[in-house]
Amino acid sequence: MALKDLRSVVRNEVGIAAVLGILKQRFGERFQTGAAVRQQHAHTTTYIPNQAPDGVAFPESTGEVQEIVKTCAAHKVPVIAFGAGTSLEGHVNAPAGGISIDTSRMNRILAVNTEDLDCTIEPGVTREDLNAHLRATGLFFPIDPGANASLGGMAATRASGTNAVRYGTMRDNVIALTAVMADGRAITTAQRARKSSAGYDLTRLLVGSEGTLGVITSLTLKLAGIPQAISGGVCPFPSVEDACNAVIMTIQTGIPVARIELVNQLQMKAMIAYSKLNYPESPCLFLEFHGSEASVAEQAGMFGSIAEEFGGGPFQWTSVVEERAKLWKARHDAYWASVALKPGHKALSTDVCVPISRLAECIAATEADIEAMGLVAPIVGHVGDGNFHVLVLMDENDPGDIERAEEFVSRLNLRAISMDGTCTGEHGIGQGKVAYLRAELGDAVDFMALVKQAFDPDNIMNPGKIF
Amino acid sequence: MALKDLRSVVRNEVGIAAVLGILKQRFGERFQTGAAVRQQHAHTTTYIPNQAPDGVAFPESTGEVQEIVKTCAAHKVPVIAFGAGTSLEGHVNAPAGGISIDTSRMNRILAVNTEDLDCTIEPGVTREDLNAHLRATGLFFPIDPGANASLGGMAATRASGTNAVRYGTMRDNVIALTAVMADGRAITTAQRARKSSAGYDLTRLLVGSEGTLGVITSLTLKLAGIPQAISGGVCPFPSVEDACNAVIMTIQTGIPVARIELVNQLQMKAMIAYSKLNYPESPCLFLEFHGSEASVAEQAGMFGSIAEEFGGGPFQWTSVVEERAKLWKARHDAYWASVALKPGHKALSTDVCVPISRLAECIAATEADIEAMGLVAPIVGHVGDGNFHVLVLMDENDPGDIERAEEFVSRLNLRAISMDGTCTGEHGIGQGKVAYLRAELGDAVDFMALVKQAFDPDNIMNPGKIF
Repeated sequence: MALKDLRSVVRNEVGIAAVLGILKQRFGERFQTGAAVRQQHAHTTTYIPNQAPDGVAFPESTGEVQEIVKTCAAHKVPVIAFGAGTSLEGHVNAPAGGISIDTSRMNRILAVNTEDLDCTIEPGVTREDLNAHLRATGLFFPIDPGANASLGGMAATRASGTNAVRYGTMRDNVIALTAVMADGRAITTAQRARKSSAGYDLTRLLVGSEGTLGVITSLTLKLAGIPQAISGGVCPFPSVEDACNAVIMTIQTGIPVARIELVNQLQMKAMIAYSKLNYPESPCLFLEFHGSEASVAEQAGMFGSIAEEFGGGPFQWTSVVEERAKLWKARHDAYWASVALKPGHKALSTDVCVPISRLAECIAATEADIEAMGLVAPIVGHVGDGNFHVLVLMDENDPGDIERAEEFVSRLNLRAISMDGTCTGEHGIGQGKVAYLRAELGDAVDFMALVKQAFDPDNIMNPGKIF
Repeated sequence: MALKDLRSVVRNEVGIAAVLGILKQRFGERFQTGAAVRQQHAHTTTYIPNQAPDGVAFPESTGEVQEIVKTCAAHKVPVIAFGAGTSLEGHVNAPAGGISIDTSRMNRILAVNTEDLDCTIEPGVTREDLNAHLRATGLFFPIDPGANASLGGMAATRASGTNAVRYGTMRDNVIALTAVMADGRAITTAQRARKSSAGYDLTRLLVGSEGTLGVITSLTLKLAGIPQAISGGVCPFPSVEDACNAVIMTIQTGIPVARIELVNQLQMKAMIAYSKLNYPESPCLFLEFHGSEASVAEQAGMFGSIAEEFGGGPFQWTSVVEERAKLWKARHDAYWASVALKPGHKALSTDVCVPISRLAECIAATEADIEAMGLVAPIVGHVGDGNFHVLVLMDENDPGDIERAEEFVSRLNLRAISMDGTCTGEHGIGQGKVAYLRAELGDAVDFMALVKQAFDPDNIMNPGKIF
C-alpha cells in the first residue's frame, strides 16, 4: 500500500460544521464550543502555539466515545483525546481543528483486584486519585511523571518518570486496554492474565501511540505493594561524570534502587535557593530505596560505598518520612526553582535518553553547548535509565530567544541519537519532535505509518502528531 | 481496507520452482532441498503433522536474509524463519510450502555492553550459548523457557519460562531488534536507550509476531547481574489451592522471588520416581531466591512463614550449589518424568495463563476434567505469573487418543479465557491455537490482521500461523 502524506492536515469546514451540530444536539451541556474551553483543551504548557479544537465533548462511557468517534468518522473530522493537558510536545493541539474528547468525566475506578495486584480504571483517573483510592489496600501505582497526569494520557504517551528504573514505564505496567478505533469499534487488547503470547501485542502498540490509533477508554494496570520501608538521601559529587559512574556501578551491582535522580550544578543552585536546602552547590544524586528495613539499610550502605569510590559524599540518608518528603518536594519543585532563576521567563522542557554508558558524555557535551550558546538551562535526569531533561529558560516574546532554544533542542536531539539514544525518553513525539523521528529510526517510520494508515485510513485520529 | 482471508494458504507451484532455482544458484551448499533436512525444519515436537518447506536456506547475514526474502517476495513464495525448532504449536510448519530460513549460522554475539547491561546478538544464538559467553562478565540473560531455544525464536514467540515472575518475558527484555520485512527492507525498531517514547513500539509489535511480520536478524537484549547469592528449595502443600494461596501471599508481600513453580501431585509422583527425589507425593512449590546472602535468607524465611499459614511445609531450602542444581534438574526433567508415566506415549504440551486469583480454581477444574476424561496429564506451572502447562500423554497412533487430547485442550483454553485469562501464556498461537484467538480477543483480532495485511500484503511471511 502506498504511503499517504500523514503530515497534511487541512481543515474540513463542512464536516466540522456538521459534527458540531450533531454533537451539540446529542450531548447538550456536555459539548462545549466556547473559546476559553477550546483553548484550554489545546496545547498550553510550552511555547508551541495553541491550536484549539472546534468543540470539546465530555463523554461518560466507552459507548459515548464510540458515538463521538463514529460521528467524526462519518464526516472525516479529527478526534483529539484529552486527559489532564500536561503533555509537553503539543499532543492535544488541533492543527486541523476537530473535536477534543475530554476524558475527565470517565474517572471511575472499575475494579481493584488486590490478589492479582492489578486494577481496571477509566482513562480520566489521575495517578494521584488512583493512589489515594488504593491507600487502604497496601498497594500503589508506581509510575510518577511528576505532574498529576491522567492515566489515559500517561498510557497514550508512554510516560514514566522518577521511579521507572525500578518499576518500569507505562509500557511495562499496562496489562490491557480498551480503545475506540477510527471506525468506531471498541477493542480490548488483552485479558487480565499477567502475560500472554496470544497474537500481536496491541496493548504495547496502543501505549505510546499518542491518540493517533485509538482513544483509550479503559486501562488494566499493574500495581505494586507499598514497600515496608523507604529510605532516601542526597549525595554530592565532584562532577556529573563521577555521579554518572556511580550510577552505572549502582545499577551493575544490582542494587534495586527505586529512584536515582541527577541534579546538575546549576539546577542544584536553583533548588538550594528555592527550597532552602543545606547542600553544596555541586552535582548531586537524589536516591530512594524500597524494601524491608534491613534491605533499605543494606542498599543505602552499599550505595554509600560506591559513591565514595567516585569521590562522592557524604551520602546523607534517612528513613524519616518528613525529611524524605522535604527532599522529594525539592526535587519535584525543580521546575519552579528553575523558573525562579530568570523571573518572567518560560521554561521549555525537553527530554532525551541515551545508553547509560554515554550519559556522562552526553550531559557534559550538553552543558558545554548551553554555555557556548549563552543559555540558562538547568538539567535533571532519571539517570538510572539514561534519561535526562533540560529546562531552557526563554523569553517567549523574544523570537531570537525561541529560535536559540529550538536550535539547542535540535542539537540535543541529534546528539542523543548519535549516541545510540532517542530523541525522547518519556515526553513523546507530539508536534515538537516530528523532525527527529526519522533521523532516529529511518525506514522503521514507514512501518509505523503503515499501521496508522491501516487503522485510520482517513487520518482522523489526532492528525499532525508523530508523523 | 477490507480484510483478506489470511487462512487461505495455497501452494504457488510456479513461484516455488522459480525460487528453488534462484536460491540454489545463489547459495549453493547453503541451500538444501533434501527430504530429511526439509522435514527436520518443519514441526517436529508434538503430534501436529509435519509440513515441510520446499527448501532450507542458511544465510549468514542480514543482507543474505534480505536477498532470500526479496526473491521469495518477487515470486510470492512463503518464508518461514527457523531458530532451533523447539516451538510447540507448529510455528515452523510450511502449510503452503516455501523457504525455511535457518538462522543457525547467524550466531555471532555482536556486542556486550557491560556498563549498559545489554548485548546485541544475531538470532541464531541460543540462550545457553549466550550465557556461556557472558559468564566472565558477571552478567546473564535471565529468560529460561527450558529448551535451549534460539533467541530469535524466543523473541518471535514472546517466550518466557521459570523466572519470568522476577525478570519478565521476552517482551520486557528486548530493547531493539532488526527485522527483514516482507518487501525485503531491513528495519531497526529502536536505538539502544533503555526507554523511549519515540513513535509506535515496533519492537513489541515484532516480539511475539511469530515470523508473520518479519524475519528477526538481530536483537539487543537486556542483561541482569548474576546474583551474589542464590537459594532454592521445595515446599509441599496439602492441596493445589493451599499452594496457590501461598503464592498469592508471597507475591503480595513483595518477596522478589526469582522462580516459584507449582508441581501437582501426579507430576510430583512422576518426578520422585524419575529423579529419585525424597519428597512427599503431594503438590509442591519449587522456589528460588536471588539477592545478597542476607536477602536470600530473609526471603526464604518470609516464604517459610507464609507457607506455614497455608498448611505447607516443611520448607527445605539450601544455598549449596549442588543441592540446588539437583532440584532444578528434576524440575527441568519434568517432561521426561511425565513421559515415563506412560512409556511409548507422546506428550502434548499445552499452556494457558490466568489471573493468579483464579489459578487454584482453574487448576482444580482442569484436574477434575483430566480425571473425568480418563487422561494421564500432569501439571507444572510458572505460578507466580498464573501460567501453567498440562502435558497430555497420548498414543499418537491412536486417533481416539488424539481426539480426546484435542478436546481436553479446547476445554482448557476456553476455561482459561472464561477466567479472564489467555489461551497461551508463552507458547504462542502458531497453528495449534488459531481457533481460540478470536474467542479470547474478539474484534481486536481484526486489527492484528490489518497490521499483517499492511506489512505483508501477499501473505508470504509464515502464512497459516496466528490467523
